[in-house]
Amino acid sequence: VNPVDIVQLILQNKSLEPQKKMGEGRASTNIALIKYWGKKDERLRIPTNSSLSVALPDKSTLTKITLSDKNHNEVILNGKALDVASPFANRLSIYLDYFRSTSTMYFKINTEVNFPVAAGLASSASGFAALVLALNDFFAWQLTKKELSILARLGSGSACRSLWSGFVEWHAGSKDDGMDSYAEQLDITWPELCAGVIVCEAKAKKINSTIAMQHTMSTSPFFNDWVSQSNKDLMQIKEAIQAKDFVLMGEIAEANAMMMHASCIAARPAILYWQPETLAIIHKIQALRQQGVPVYLTIDAGANLVLFFIQDEKQAIIKALPKAEILQLQI
Amino acid sequence: VNPVDIVQLILQNKSLEPQKKMGEGRASTNIALIKYWGKKDERLRIPTNSSLSVALPDKSTLTKITLSDKNHNEVILNGKALDVASPFANRLSIYLDYFRSTSTMYFKINTEVNFPVAAGLASSASGFAALVLALNDFFAWQLTKKELSILARLGSGSACRSLWSGFVEWHAGSKDDGMDSYAEQLDITWPELCAGVIVCEAKAKKINSTIAMQHTMSTSPFFNDWVSQSNKDLMQIKEAIQAKDFVLMGEIAEANAMMMHASCIAARPAILYWQPETLAIIHKIQALRQQGVPVYLTIDAGANLVLFFIQDEKQAIIKALPKAEILQLQI
Repeated sequence: VNPVDIVQLILQNKSLEPQKKMGEGRASTNIALIKYWGKKDERLRIPTNSSLSVALPDKSTLTKITLSDKNHNEVILNGKALDVASPFANRLSIYLDYFRSTSTMYFKINTEVNFPVAAGLASSASGFAALVLALNDFFAWQLTKKELSILARLGSGSACRSLWSGFVEWHAGSKDDGMDSYAEQLDITWPELCAGVIVCEAKAKKINSTIAMQHTMSTSPFFNDWVSQSNKDLMQIKEAIQAKDFVLMGEIAEANAMMMHASCIAARPAILYWQPETLAIIHKIQALRQQGVPVYLTIDAGANLVLFFIQDEKQAIIKALPKAEILQLQI
Repeated sequence: VNPVDIVQLILQNKSLEPQKKMGEGRASTNIALIKYWGKKDERLRIPTNSSLSVALPDKSTLTKITLSDKNHNEVILNGKALDVASPFANRLSIYLDYFRSTSTMYFKINTEVNFPVAAGLASSASGFAALVLALNDFFAWQLTKKELSILARLGSGSACRSLWSGFVEWHAGSKDDGMDSYAEQLDITWPELCAGVIVCEAKAKKINSTIAMQHTMSTSPFFNDWVSQSNKDLMQIKEAIQAKDFVLMGEIAEANAMMMHASCIAARPAILYWQPETLAIIHKIQALRQQGVPVYLTIDAGANLVLFFIQDEKQAIIKALPKAEILQLQI
C-alpha cells in the first residue's frame, strides 16, 4: 500500500480543484507523554506503539496555501523562500504531490512557525497538521478530524495528534493500510495543569528522528522491550489522567521519556540527543522533587525539555528554573 | 549458602593464626569493557553475566594488615582513621569477621589508595583484592589465584578481577555456591594499547552500585536484554582482542558501557551517573572518531570516563582532551 492509495481512499470523489484563492490552517505542536518511537510501516508511518500527547497551544504553525505560478512547488518559511532542494521543502513537496490534480499544477506554501524548527519540539507535527487543515480549506473537502488525522500522519507521524487541544491519544492500529491508525482527543478538563519549555539548543538537531528511529529499531537490544513497556505505560497513564493523579502521570511520562532515550543510547552506535545542559536540568529537576516540588519532565528527540507541574507550583518553578518558558495548556 | 561457608570451603584447615607481624597486598583497579551489572546472588555476589576488564596498573591500592589492640577493627584510609560506623569501614569490618579466629581478635587495616575513592573508578575492586592478598600474606595461606579471586568476590564483585594485569575475564559460573564464579587472565600481549582517564567528578558518587544494580534489576524494563546482549558482547570482544582488532574491540566496549547506562536510565525512577561534563566528553569523542581518530570510551557506575586508543594516537588524544591522564596498561 502506498501513501497515495490512502489519500485516494480518504478523498474518494472529492475535488482536487481549489475552491477559493487561499486555504488556511493553524495547528499547535504537541509533546508526547508516551512517545512515538518506531514505525511498523515506514511509508505509511504506522507506529510500533500507541502514544499520548498534550497540545502546546502557544507553539503553533499557521500555513497558507495558494496555487503557484512557477513550475515547481514553493515553500516560504517564516517569510523566507526555501531552496526546492532543501530537506524541508523537498519533504513538503513529496507530500503535496499526492494532491496535485494535473502535472502542471503547483502549490505555494506560506508557513509561519513561532518556535525553533527541528529542535525536538515537534515542528513537523504542527507543520503537517496545519498543512492538512489548509488543504481541507483550500479544496473545501470538509473531511472529519479522523480523516484529517490519517492524512496528517502520512506527512509526519506525530502530526496526526496535532489537530486537537488537550490530551490526545494516537491509536497505533492493526490494519496494514493504517486506516485505524489515527488520533483522538481524551474527554477531560484540567485547567490547573501547566507546562514549561526549556530550550537547550535552538539550532537544528543533527540526527533526524526518522533515521534515528530506524537505527534504534535495527540496532538497539532494548527496542522490543521499549514497545511492550510503552503499551503498559499508555494504559496506566490514561488511568492517572482520568483520576487527575498528577504525580502518577508525571512519573509515568518521565519514565517513558527516559526509556525512549535509553533505547537510543543503547543503539549501536549510540544516539545521544541530550546536551550537557539537558543533563544539568534533569539533575536539577530530580533535586527539586527531593525538595518536595512535584515537577516532572519529558524530552522529545532533541535536547530541549518540557516540564509539567500544577498551577500552585508555578512560582517555585520560575524561581528554580528561570529559563523555563511557562505555557498555557488550556485543558 | 552464606559467605562464611564459602570462606571455610576455601580455607579448609588453613590457619587463622597470623604467621607474621604484618601482611601486605597490592592490587590495581580494573575497568570493565564488558560490565558487571546485576547479581544472581546478593550475598555471594554471583553476577547475572560474565564480564571482562583491563587492569589499570597506575591506579592501585596498597593494604597492610596487623592485629589491632582495640576491641574493634580499625581502618585507616590514606593516613586517616575512619569512623567504625562509616560505610566503608563497616563494609570492611563485615568482611574481616569471616577471618577472625576468636571473638577478641581484631584487625588493623592500613590502606593507601592513589586515586579518587568511590567515584566510579572501582576503588572497591582494588581495595578488596589488596585486602585478600594481605590476608593471604598475613596468614601464609598460599592460596591459588583462583581461590583468592573467589574470596575477593565475596567482598566486592569486581575485586575478583583485580588480581591480574592485562585483560581479565570473570566467569559468571552456574553453581549455587559460586565456586565456579571467578576470574582468569587472558593470554595476550598488546603493548600498543593505551588508556586515559578523565575524572569529571572526584567527589564520592551518590548512589552506590549495589543499590543501583538492585534498582535496575527490579525496575528497568531493559534488564533482561542487558544480560543476554552482554553475553553476546563478551564472546565477540574476546575474538576482537585475540585478533587485536582495536576498532571492533572499542566499538563493543563502548556499546556495552552505553547499554549499561541505558539500563539504568530506563530504571524507575532513572539512575543517572553522568554529569554534564561526562556528556560533553562523550560528544567530543564521537566527534573525534568522525575526524578519523580511533578512540573509544567506557564509563563505570560513576561520572568518569576511561578512553582506549593505540599508542600512535597518543598525541592526537592529548591535544584534543588535555584533561585526560594517560595510563600505562603494560599488556
